[in-house]
Amino acid sequence: MTADTDLREQVHAAARRARVAANALALLHRADKDKALLAMADALRAHAEPVLEANAADVAAGRESGMASGLLDRLTLTEARIDGIAGGLTKVANLPDPVGETVRGSTLANGLRLTQVRVPMGVVGMVYEARPNVTVDAAGLALKSGNAALLRGSSSAAHTNAALVEVLRDALTGVGLPADAVQLLPCEDRASVRHLITARGLVDLVIPRGGAGLIQSVVNEATVPTVETGVGNCHVYVDASADLDMAERLVINSKARRPSVCNSAETVLVHAEVAEKFVPSLATALRLAGVTVHADERFAALAPGVLPATDEDWDVEYLSMDIAAGVVDSLDEAIKHIARHGSGHTEAIITSDIAAANAFTTRVDSAAVMVNASTAFTDGEEFGMGAEIGISTQKQHARGPMALPELTTTKWIVWGQGHTRPA
Amino acid sequence: MTADTDLREQVHAAARRARVAANALALLHRADKDKALLAMADALRAHAEPVLEANAADVAAGRESGMASGLLDRLTLTEARIDGIAGGLTKVANLPDPVGETVRGSTLANGLRLTQVRVPMGVVGMVYEARPNVTVDAAGLALKSGNAALLRGSSSAAHTNAALVEVLRDALTGVGLPADAVQLLPCEDRASVRHLITARGLVDLVIPRGGAGLIQSVVNEATVPTVETGVGNCHVYVDASADLDMAERLVINSKARRPSVCNSAETVLVHAEVAEKFVPSLATALRLAGVTVHADERFAALAPGVLPATDEDWDVEYLSMDIAAGVVDSLDEAIKHIARHGSGHTEAIITSDIAAANAFTTRVDSAAVMVNASTAFTDGEEFGMGAEIGISTQKQHARGPMALPELTTTKWIVWGQGHTRPA
Repeated sequence: MTADTDLREQVHAAARRARVAANALALLHRADKDKALLAMADALRAHAEPVLEANAADVAAGRESGMASGLLDRLTLTEARIDGIAGGLTKVANLPDPVGETVRGSTLANGLRLTQVRVPMGVVGMVYEARPNVTVDAAGLALKSGNAALLRGSSSAAHTNAALVEVLRDALTGVGLPADAVQLLPCEDRASVRHLITARGLVDLVIPRGGAGLIQSVVNEATVPTVETGVGNCHVYVDASADLDMAERLVINSKARRPSVCNSAETVLVHAEVAEKFVPSLATALRLAGVTVHADERFAALAPGVLPATDEDWDVEYLSMDIAAGVVDSLDEAIKHIARHGSGHTEAIITSDIAAANAFTTRVDSAAVMVNASTAFTDGEEFGMGAEIGISTQKQHARGPMALPELTTTKWIVWGQGHTRPA
Repeated sequence: MTADTDLREQVHAAARRARVAANALALLHRADKDKALLAMADALRAHAEPVLEANAADVAAGRESGMASGLLDRLTLTEARIDGIAGGLTKVANLPDPVGETVRGSTLANGLRLTQVRVPMGVVGMVYEARPNVTVDAAGLALKSGNAALLRGSSSAAHTNAALVEVLRDALTGVGLPADAVQLLPCEDRASVRHLITARGLVDLVIPRGGAGLIQSVVNEATVPTVETGVGNCHVYVDASADLDMAERLVINSKARRPSVCNSAETVLVHAEVAEKFVPSLATALRLAGVTVHADERFAALAPGVLPATDEDWDVEYLSMDIAAGVVDSLDEAIKHIARHGSGHTEAIITSDIAAANAFTTRVDSAAVMVNASTAFTDGEEFGMGAEIGISTQKQHARGPMALPELTTTKWIVWGQGHTRPA
């Protein structure tokens, strides 16, 4: 209990230091922020050595504890990867500054001049998995949008994150900015997440990136505003009118390009009218691509050798080379299936029928709805945002890929000349 | 416990019916929604009689239970007030439809066509005080933005709200729309609020309107996304360079125009350089306007007869003819006072110095920051939004007056021609 109180005080103290830094960051002009971002990029390249040493310790510990090879790969840094991460900061420097952007403005009938402008959120917390690049990306995006960052990474990347943040903080100090604009929170204990998401008044926004378990605990316990990210049970629906060659390419790309990311497809639904022609060749293509199919009875009848789908298969986010597959009698049935089982991330229709495309894009209630395109395109970089801090699957505040504007709020500035409001 | 489970099931069942209605509303065109709004307005005028009878019962019960006269007045309906409420629906019909508005759009380098369009939130809950007009306003704004409304009004307006909602639902049925687009939740028990704000997955957004107590309980218990509204500890700062006649008019208007609303000023801060000249006349003007002043020592020394301010006076939202008053040595001290005690609603500076105005608007972190204008202007109608569902004092999703666009979310619609994403 005392240890927990101490940890709480540590998190709160960091948040209070972050507020002081945020107050300074909010007043910076773009030139100052870009200079800092470039200094951070240079510093990372110049100090790759200690970062790689720290990373080697994390990787060794991960290997010893039996970390899965995919996770180990994401955790591992190389000189080339550090160079790429530094390049990300340079890209953020090249993006326009969201702060000060006028969202709306008008002069009222009484002469009051109104502008709604973007301003920083203030203190932004990130909770994330063992990917060291997120540490640097989040710090860079927060800084560019005028926010102080509280970073709560995975304990399995503790040494790497500590080394990275030390380099970033030194670079900030070097250009005269407060080091506390970027702080790493203790990560040994899960309780630090709880203290972060309940630090109401001290923290303005928390973005959890991680699995359904983390998201659920954040939803239940948070008193600080949060944005849910990254759970994607994405669907591809192959309509009766689909170009079936295109459909096959798009299913394979949506599923197999990078199965571990949230925009990969987890279910394919095929219209009954084309099932007989399409399912056998799709099943073959999926098998050749290394994908295990979990199919309903009608799909399985056309694709011998696939696994039977259980009830859970329609709701699970595999994040692996597995896909659920079913046959539906209509577009309407597909839309209802998606409404029942989807996570509101990304769904695609493959069709040549404009009415079907319009019905699908209008009725499917997801962050992104694709027509004749791979679900893999839901991504901040692909969408031309230049960066991404996460993909929101909630409807409040931001939906879909989040970048710099989504890390800001707005303020109404009203200029009068002694205006009083009549009774 | 069984009663609580029953109540929970009642709220959830209403939310499920609302979802069905919302799915239909999301597909309506503006013409259909406007027709329904005008039918609702006509029905209210045509059925004023039963509404007034129901209202008389609530008012009588309120008087018996010793309800404060201000609240009684807000609860009371007259034929003229019903006409005004119906007129509000007509105004909403005349507002542009936020649904379908393209927020951003582009064609990417690979030919993918992207548009981010506004779509309804889905099921929106409102928790509010004993003002029957809110029942109709919220129903109208929700309908126009394509949302189904779950209304949880005050038990002291129970009969009035039931009569109003019956009229609105009949009008919806009359134009072929689902009556469940507008539903009243049980209000006898506070627990129905809890069931509403924890109906995650069933309800997309809850807007609590009410005092600090309601807001706090919502913040602590909600698992559904919420928007905090309406707590306003607003400040007027009179700068050294202020036109003192203007300053006096603006302080009086900010405080005394309608002290019971959230945009009224609760604290005035006067720069020391003008205190000797300004404070005595301001104190007189406040006294003549019927305002009780709670002053710090320096203010009180120049305004005999005022009450001494306690520590609490700087943090309280009086919502009455009271104001806290203090003398500060600098603009910086005023800004720091506001950061410590303000609620982030509205703050005003009275100044003729452009540098002071810029510093104040840049550094004060509130939903609205005014220069030489009354705090009373922070209002959806005044800001030209045509309506208002509440004033958000949070930074997430919406900040300041909320109207139709703030009741929507967005969806990315992506059109390709067989686009796959390269590895």
